Amino acid sequence: MRDVLDFVAEVPLVDHHCHGVVTGAVDREGFEGMLTEADGVSPWGTSLFESLVGLAVRERCAPVLDLPKHAPADEYLARRAELGAEEVNRRFLRATGTTDFLLDGGFQPGALTGTAEFADLAGARAHDVVRLEQVAEDVVRAGTTASRFAADFQAELQKRTEHAVGVKSIAAYRVGLELDGERPDAVEVTDAVGRWLSRVSAGLPLRLRDEVLHRHLIWAGIDLGLPVQFHVGYGDSDVDLHRCDPLLLTAFLRATRGSGVPILLLHNYPFHRNAAYLAQVFEHVFVDTGLITHNAGLRAPAILAETLELVPFGKLLFSTDAFGLAELYHLGTSLFRQGLSDFLEAALAADALSEVDAQRLVRLAAHQNANRIYRLEPR
Amino acid sequence: MRDVLDFVAEVPLVDHHCHGVVTGAVDREGFEGMLTEADGVSPWGTSLFESLVGLAVRERCAPVLDLPKHAPADEYLARRAELGAEEVNRRFLRATGTTDFLLDGGFQPGALTGTAEFADLAGARAHDVVRLEQVAEDVVRAGTTASRFAADFQAELQKRTEHAVGVKSIAAYRVGLELDGERPDAVEVTDAVGRWLSRVSAGLPLRLRDEVLHRHLIWAGIDLGLPVQFHVGYGDSDVDLHRCDPLLLTAFLRATRGSGVPILLLHNYPFHRNAAYLAQVFEHVFVDTGLITHNAGLRAPAILAETLELVPFGKLLFSTDAFGLAELYHLGTSLFRQGLSDFLEAALAADALSEVDAQRLVRLAAHQNANRIYRLEPR
Amino acid sequence: MRDVLDFVAEVPLVDHHCHGVVTGAVDREGFEGMLTEADGVSPWGTSLFESLVGLAVRERCAPVLDLPKHAPADEYLARRAELGAEEVNRRFLRATGTTDFLLDGGFQPGALTGTAEFADLAGARAHDVVRLEQVAEDVVRAGTTASRFAADFQAELQKRTEHAVGVKSIAAYRVGLELDGERPDAVEVTDAVGRWLSRVSAGLPLRLRDEVLHRHLIWAGIDLGLPVQFHVGYGDSDVDLHRCDPLLLTAFLRATRGSGVPILLLHNYPFHRNAAYLAQVFEHVFVDTGLITHNAGLRAPAILAETLELVPFGKLLFSTDAFGLAELYHLGTSLFRQGLSDFLEAALAADALSEVDAQRLVRLAAHQNANRIYRLEPR
Repeated sequence: MRDVLDFVAEVPLVDHHCHGVVTGAVDREGFEGMLTEADGVSPWGTSLFESLVGLAVRERCAPVLDLPKHAPADEYLARRAELGAEEVNRRFLRATGTTDFLLDGGFQPGALTGTAEFADLAGARAHDVVRLEQVAEDVVRAGTTASRFAADFQAELQKRTEHAVGVKSIAAYRVGLELDGERPDAVEVTDAVGRWLSRVSAGLPLRLRDEVLHRHLIWAGIDLGLPVQFHVGYGDSDVDLHRCDPLLLTAFLRATRGSGVPILLLHNYPFHRNAAYLAQVFEHVFVDTGLITHNAGLRAPAILAETLELVPFGKLLFSTDAFGLAELYHLGTSLFRQGLSDFLEAALAADALSEVDAQRLVRLAAHQNANRIYRLEPR
Repeated sequence: MRDVLDFVAEVPLVDHHCHGVVTGAVDREGFEGMLTEADGVSPWGTSLFESLVGLAVRERCAPVLDLPKHAPADEYLARRAELGAEEVNRRFLRATGTTDFLLDGGFQPGALTGTAEFADLAGARAHDVVRLEQVAEDVVRAGTTASRFAADFQAELQKRTEHAVGVKSIAAYRVGLELDGERPDAVEVTDAVGRWLSRVSAGLPLRLRDEVLHRHLIWAGIDLGLPVQFHVGYGDSDVDLHRCDPLLLTAFLRATRGSGVPILLLHNYPFHRNAAYLAQVFEHVFVDTGLITHNAGLRAPAILAETLELVPFGKLLFSTDAFGLAELYHLGTSLFRQGLSDFLEAALAADALSEVDAQRLVRLAAHQNANRIYRLEPR
Repeated sequence: MRDVLDFVAEVPLVDHHCHGVVTGAVDREGFEGMLTEADGVSPWGTSLFESLVGLAVRERCAPVLDLPKHAPADEYLARRAELGAEEVNRRFLRATGTTDFLLDGGFQPGALTGTAEFADLAGARAHDVVRLEQVAEDVVRAGTTASRFAADFQAELQKRTEHAVGVKSIAAYRVGLELDGERPDAVEVTDAVGRWLSRVSAGLPLRLRDEVLHRHLIWAGIDLGLPVQFHVGYGDSDVDLHRCDPLLLTAFLRATRGSGVPILLLHNYPFHRNAAYLAQVFEHVFVDTGLITHNAGLRAPAILAETLELVPFGKLLFSTDAFGLAELYHLGTSLFRQGLSDFLEAALAADALSEVDAQRLVRLAAHQNANRIYRLEPR
């Protein structure tokens, strides 16, 4: 690991978007399957350890498990198994220096730790972010009608967000981000639910995929006054990435300027410059570079630098978007610190800012912006 | 400021696209409102001085006002007020080393210096670039009919461009850049003007927004034989940035290859690589990296380097796109010199070109290309 | 030339996509016309030697012709003429360290060397890649009917690919990459051929340009079990670059996951990060950075680094996409080595990987991946 400026290495972090961690043993196939956004190793390719994130695991994670840097993958996984999942999870989560984790529990909830268990493992605070589409699908699963859906959803959302700090939309994964600027009216919502319920009755999958309804869910979230997170950009092969450019949200962002609710654009790569532009010109928009930070390994600092071209420091947040593997929380955190440090060290060397300024900017991105937006009690 | 190669620091510049400067006092709110493309400070964010352009002001502008580098924002603004707008404007404009400014006077003309006043302040030559849409709107404002518009517009444009060196289209801001390749015929124009006038009669805003008419205006500009500038890419929240990718102009560029008129793509970020591609393959296309150069502060050299991947040096121009704040002329200029210098210094260190070559390439981008395209008398 | 790590300088390369070389004399106009994707020198611009690829010729090619680095363009071309085309071609092709060239002979076949002649000049193996659209156009040229076309095409393709290692689609140049996910059925194909033949009978150009038929050709290639190459991204002014983003292939890639055939995305710039994402999440997708590598000259390493953010090393191939000028094979090769070396040298300096790892990754990208995908006999 390259040197990191002291005040960057030590600044407490708020990880404003991540998921739970797996608690059981993980074999090589399982590990590679969670390492990147690929489902697993390609029969035409080679091991996914032969990638920047794979190299980063061997560089930055091996020492946390008492191995030398660059230990071979098999040795690494053998040591991981020897220590056991709980010890591995504890070590990596506690190595992050994160005080608060905001967990989206909506993806594969059965396979991962819940919020309380996660907080225990990490020795930190953990908060819930509620995935809007999961709530809607649960409401349909529990039984509703086209005319009752809106009220049922609102009631269920209210209940589930009682202790939550935000909501999240995965419209990007289902219909893309070209959302209409207008809030859908009651008739549009009822009609769309009617079509959805008919498809479900006909035996089609329950999975929500309807631009009107994603939009309705988001506005219902806005009504609660909670910050709204959006999946943007990079994800697995289920995403149509060209429909996930955050610029497609422009009309929606114009429509929600006056709503009093912050909009958080998650991940954003390879559209991170576009997201940074939106965060500059729309007062309620904020961005991070989660997911790509650990995936890009030693290139993560370069991507953060590109993002910083336009986003004011008051609009940049930190997240890992780590999922499943405890290594990813550590990598996301370690590489974010590396990126901030590389950027500021070069700027300080060029006398482009003062050290006092550098320290203040680090605190903003590391935790102050998140504390302010999600109204967390600072620790 | 990092070191800049002597021959880059001293080369005279032609700023082929900028606006006037404000002549009155500017308070902190006003300053931050003009510093970036945001309308002002977000109630959810922090000061816009906490951004790369804000840091650049404190690094590169403070010394011009006799302050130490990195002077705090409030001290900086106090000193600015103490010196007075005229002295501040004069200092920054004269620090640029610019011999010729090409001014687009079409945006908020009442609030800014006109061309002659600007030339006086800067101690340099200033030339007019005429905004096509402003002329068309003035023609409608003055009273015309659907059938008379084309002739009225042509006459007015002829009059206003008598001493102008180019025209400019802001179609990007109104309808995006996906312009049809064909020149609209007289019937199409008359019909479109008819619809426009009806909307105005019905009390709707006079603002032009019609793909046919933007296109007509541009062809009318081409008829005059003047270089045509296009706003491309980055701008304020009024722009639909995903409709401002210069690649959307491809059909239009094919249609205008034989017109004998150069097309200038302004700003371009975050699509600067796309613009550079167009400048390589279309003989009449030229690019710059205005606006982003000051906004990206210490990252400006990285963006210039990306642009240089494909654009031949004979097709690259310099502009600041500075507007209002005198600091922005200085920053755009200073950061452009920094970027050219960083690029060439690294290339010289790698022995990837000779110093004689480096000096010739700098002169092309700094002023020779602009002098040739706009037929300016070299100074 | 900057230093290159020994194991990168010496690794044998498989150039999995290039074209033939011109065998006759080339004057300055001809040279500049083949140097970039521009048709030639712009009357509004300056020499195309004043570009990064032009500088790279003078830096990296002059010494191969016994000239000092940075020799002026005219001296360079005089020396080139003095040595004669055959000697020049032999020197540059043999300087590459390439063991296998995969030649797309489908563009301007009359003007360039064929495969056997190329192999002789290069002292290496050369293999054929068959351009699907050329076969289809030849079938129409030879005479077919709407109902016979599919069988005629299949028979001709089978014949021409007998000794070929892959096929290539230039759908990007004709209809863009937004191909439907479904294989067209027999009726759709017959109808589309019928429309095509009618246009040809009416005297329109024979050039294929029909989404259904490009798609049919590609599926016919898949039926042969051969790797399918796609032109993606950057090309000459004949391309609509905004229709050549590889993300537009997403539906097609989902549809071909189970086909057992690798898909090779060529060039990709400026969408190389998008292509790298596809190579990560789709098991049958592979990428390279051909064409831009020589065009971007000293910036080629930066582009390769961006590509490496997401592509696993088992999914990255090498190509030059050199065409016509022997210099381009040498530049593409030399700059690819430079890029890999710069990337790994910085990583080694940061202790982000071990030298053993670095050497293995280089072998994958340089030749092992290509040998595996195209089933070449390793040399």
